[in-house]
Amino acid sequence: MTELRVGLLGLGTIGTGVARILIEQRDLISRRLGKEVRLVAAADRDLNRDRGLDFTGVRISDDANDIVAADDIDLVVELIGGYEPARTFVSAALANGKHVVTANKALIAKHGEELFPVAADKGLQIGFEAAVGGGIPCMKALREGLAANAIESVYGILNGTCNFILTKMENEGADYADVLKEAQALGYAEADPTFDVEGIDTAQKLSILAAMAFGSKIRFEEVFTEGISRITATDIQAANELGYRIKLLGIAKPHGDNGDVDAVEMRVHPTLVPLSSQMAQVSDSYNAVQISGDYVEHTMYFGRGAGERPTASAVVADIMDIASGFPDGIAHLAPPMGFVEASRRDIATMPMADTECEYFIRLMVKDQPGVIASVTSILADHRISLEALTQKERHASHNVPIIMLTHETTEGNMQAAISRIIGLEAVEDDVLILRKESAVA
Amino acid sequence: MTELRVGLLGLGTIGTGVARILIEQRDLISRRLGKEVRLVAAADRDLNRDRGLDFTGVRISDDANDIVAADDIDLVVELIGGYEPARTFVSAALANGKHVVTANKALIAKHGEELFPVAADKGLQIGFEAAVGGGIPCMKALREGLAANAIESVYGILNGTCNFILTKMENEGADYADVLKEAQALGYAEADPTFDVEGIDTAQKLSILAAMAFGSKIRFEEVFTEGISRITATDIQAANELGYRIKLLGIAKPHGDNGDVDAVEMRVHPTLVPLSSQMAQVSDSYNAVQISGDYVEHTMYFGRGAGERPTASAVVADIMDIASGFPDGIAHLAPPMGFVEASRRDIATMPMADTECEYFIRLMVKDQPGVIASVTSILADHRISLEALTQKERHASHNVPIIMLTHETTEGNMQAAISRIIGLEAVEDDVLILRKESAVA
Repeated sequence: MTELRVGLLGLGTIGTGVARILIEQRDLISRRLGKEVRLVAAADRDLNRDRGLDFTGVRISDDANDIVAADDIDLVVELIGGYEPARTFVSAALANGKHVVTANKALIAKHGEELFPVAADKGLQIGFEAAVGGGIPCMKALREGLAANAIESVYGILNGTCNFILTKMENEGADYADVLKEAQALGYAEADPTFDVEGIDTAQKLSILAAMAFGSKIRFEEVFTEGISRITATDIQAANELGYRIKLLGIAKPHGDNGDVDAVEMRVHPTLVPLSSQMAQVSDSYNAVQISGDYVEHTMYFGRGAGERPTASAVVADIMDIASGFPDGIAHLAPPMGFVEASRRDIATMPMADTECEYFIRLMVKDQPGVIASVTSILADHRISLEALTQKERHASHNVPIIMLTHETTEGNMQAAISRIIGLEAVEDDVLILRKESAVA
Repeated sequence: MTELRVGLLGLGTIGTGVARILIEQRDLISRRLGKEVRLVAAADRDLNRDRGLDFTGVRISDDANDIVAADDIDLVVELIGGYEPARTFVSAALANGKHVVTANKALIAKHGEELFPVAADKGLQIGFEAAVGGGIPCMKALREGLAANAIESVYGILNGTCNFILTKMENEGADYADVLKEAQALGYAEADPTFDVEGIDTAQKLSILAAMAFGSKIRFEEVFTEGISRITATDIQAANELGYRIKLLGIAKPHGDNGDVDAVEMRVHPTLVPLSSQMAQVSDSYNAVQISGDYVEHTMYFGRGAGERPTASAVVADIMDIASGFPDGIAHLAPPMGFVEASRRDIATMPMADTECEYFIRLMVKDQPGVIASVTSILADHRISLEALTQKERHASHNVPIIMLTHETTEGNMQAAISRIIGLEAVEDDVLILRKESAVA
């Protein structure tokens, strides 16, 4: 029986999960494939910890170089995470003619464009299903399942920490800081939560999804990114009352004429989605990706976005894909980014000021006559029309929250109006702008 | 550039959609694949109708034999539907060394087991993504994306007609017969709706999903099947009040020890799902499939389950998969049913009497003392305990609806209790039993 020999870099949470599947589901895997997938070697700097697994027959090392250079390994799984030394080891594995599977979204978002051509030149595959949406096979759906479509939009709840915090804030009427502390205590948020709560993790994942959707190059640094740390319990409740729920979404849309994409819109921010939508129903640490195409219309993919077992499921799916094509059919698998390298294009990112949205605006104003008139006349000057306006009860600060929903306008126009509104003497500086997407299914 | 030459059987709704994609998205397809997919020929008995497409360069025939026998065709797309002549043409295409893609769930459910070994022997692929869940790439997700998992359950809303009817009944408080008429007028239901509303279509799709999930053979005739035609507005409202929504689900679960599946549970029936679940949110003609695995936990796939464009999207995705492997990598694609033919097993279907469920029971009883005592003492005799009991307002018939929710028991036990309850003089014969699934995500 044909055998694919796997070497594993990193025996942390995900790495242990991958080793566990390769050892414990070995029969299932060979029944599916008609081939063997064998864990040959694994490396980790910490070899003292007990992983609760029987590694008999597996070479264990504390040096990753033993894996990337080994003659008896066909595929290297990189689960170290971060930029370095992950990049160095992945490059070395490719240089040595080994296929690569990784769960490392940072690596793909930042260095994918340097790695893909190398892999293509050498007839090697790079799998990274686990980098976006954890266990959800959403990359495969986008790359292969929807391949007949020109993709029209991608909306994703891609960060479980943010979704957990927003769900808890809504369910308990609690404020951000309190829920963050709880999430940290439960292990759902890091001690330094910036990477998650400020949307950077979501932006990395979105940049990969967008490039795969539109056949463009990955431009992670150009994603407009806002996090959830300024959202208050009042905002969440006000959104609910208007028929919406606040979710941190990654959003990507193509722009251009006649199906030719000449700009890609990419933004990550807290977003109002209709309470009746599937997206609004995605709670706790679950992730979901909605992908719409010109033929398939709306589709959605839902599941666990993180965790040892779900993420390992996605890593091993990639290994099994490569095993299917191994040894001589690799060139006949779908290309990693869904388009052959030669046809992937460097498409500009649409400037955020040019994007169009409906907006939710929360102002704190002094309780005095004429404030609403001043605010709304500024909006009118900018041809921004209102869908709803609510004045809420006075805060302890003696200021009054005003909530507005607008019809569609450009971000540039909205920012110009907001800077004038903040200039009003009766308006506090702390203005919150959220964006609304009614098109989520 | 390598070229895959496609012949199309049937230019009805889906066939026209497939032709449209192959003609209009030709550039996109070749940018993705680095290969050409060319529509070479198409056959339909009715060549007079205008399909609104430019068929220049495409051979059009009224005889399917021209396609299945043609030397210049590599892949035959069967979109005739039904058992015959679809089966004859698909067999002939395989015999002539052509790959096959079909949207025909009836064909796969009934004759798949005769076709798969022929294809495997000849190194040919059979694609049928469009047969289940329309445009949703759920077969690919199950077969490849979740391949590292032992599958623990499959729940699907697989018939758009039933979901449309149930959604409308709930939203409008309307009865089945009225909504069915409306659905027929709108083209959402056939003049003879039996195939859809009695659950047969769902059972065909479920039998394919189950076989793919558990590595078993397709046993469509053994699926327990109940439709939606006996549901009333009262039942829907009573379920809502208890915190549930009624959906027609196809359900498949494996049974056995230590991961060895020795029986497969397959049933299609109206099912109570929690109002807060993703599944409850799937409305109108949308479909969704929830698949849970031992590593990935819950996943769900949502989208359009029918229609020209979504279904054509799935058909062309299959064509593109085969094109990826064409001409010499076909043997290296995932096998059609997710397990190589040699390891697929003929696993028994669990007798319905042995399955375990929680139940929703609706009785119509005479308004006289002691009836509830008699009913509940019969349930107690069968060790069936109640979670809830509600007596509703008296009907025009002067009878009183009683709604009960039970804890878990076997179907056999429940049926024995129900036949005794129907025997009570004060209980009408028209007893409705629904089943409840709390584990949907």
